[in-house]
Amino acid sequence: MKYRILVTLKPGVLDPQGKAIHHALEGLGFDGVEDVRAGKLIELEVADSVGQPEIEEMCRKLLANTVIENFRIEAAEPARA
Amino acid sequence: MKYRILVTLKPGVLDPQGKAIHHALEGLGFDGVEDVRAGKLIELEVADSVGQPEIEEMCRKLLANTVIENFRIEAAEPARA
Repeated sequence: MKYRILVTLKPGVLDPQGKAIHHALEGLGFDGVEDVRAGKLIELEVADSVGQPEIEEMCRKLLANTVIENFRIEAAEPARA
Repeated sequence: MKYRILVTLKPGVLDPQGKAIHHALEGLGFDGVEDVRAGKLIELEVADSVGQPEIEEMCRKLLANTVIENFRIEAAEPARA
């Protein structure tokens, strides 16, 4: 079973990486970009015995810093171009 | 309009960050994890005049390294805990 975990900074937490991306997009001439936030994506492939509660525990213990980050768990297929 | 962009390493490209996460999860006692791949998540908020083709161009020009990375564009709501 494949899951993907989206880790994002909480609203209000400064995001210099997002700001840099925003600035670079404008420098390349892309207009109409209002906000950019950078986060992390973690794709987990787990045995069928591992469920959503275990994955949530992994997030709390290791994958996300819940002081400043939110996480979302989704069942997933792999990304493609 | 909000989009999220998922940037992942192409299959076959070595992922030391994913390997480190996998190892750390095992060290914490989580069994049943078969594979971990680390990627990037970029959340874009754009004007309504900006559509999927523009966002794809942003990915090709800046957000993803298409030599080693795939990207996927999705319409999105913000992530939460």
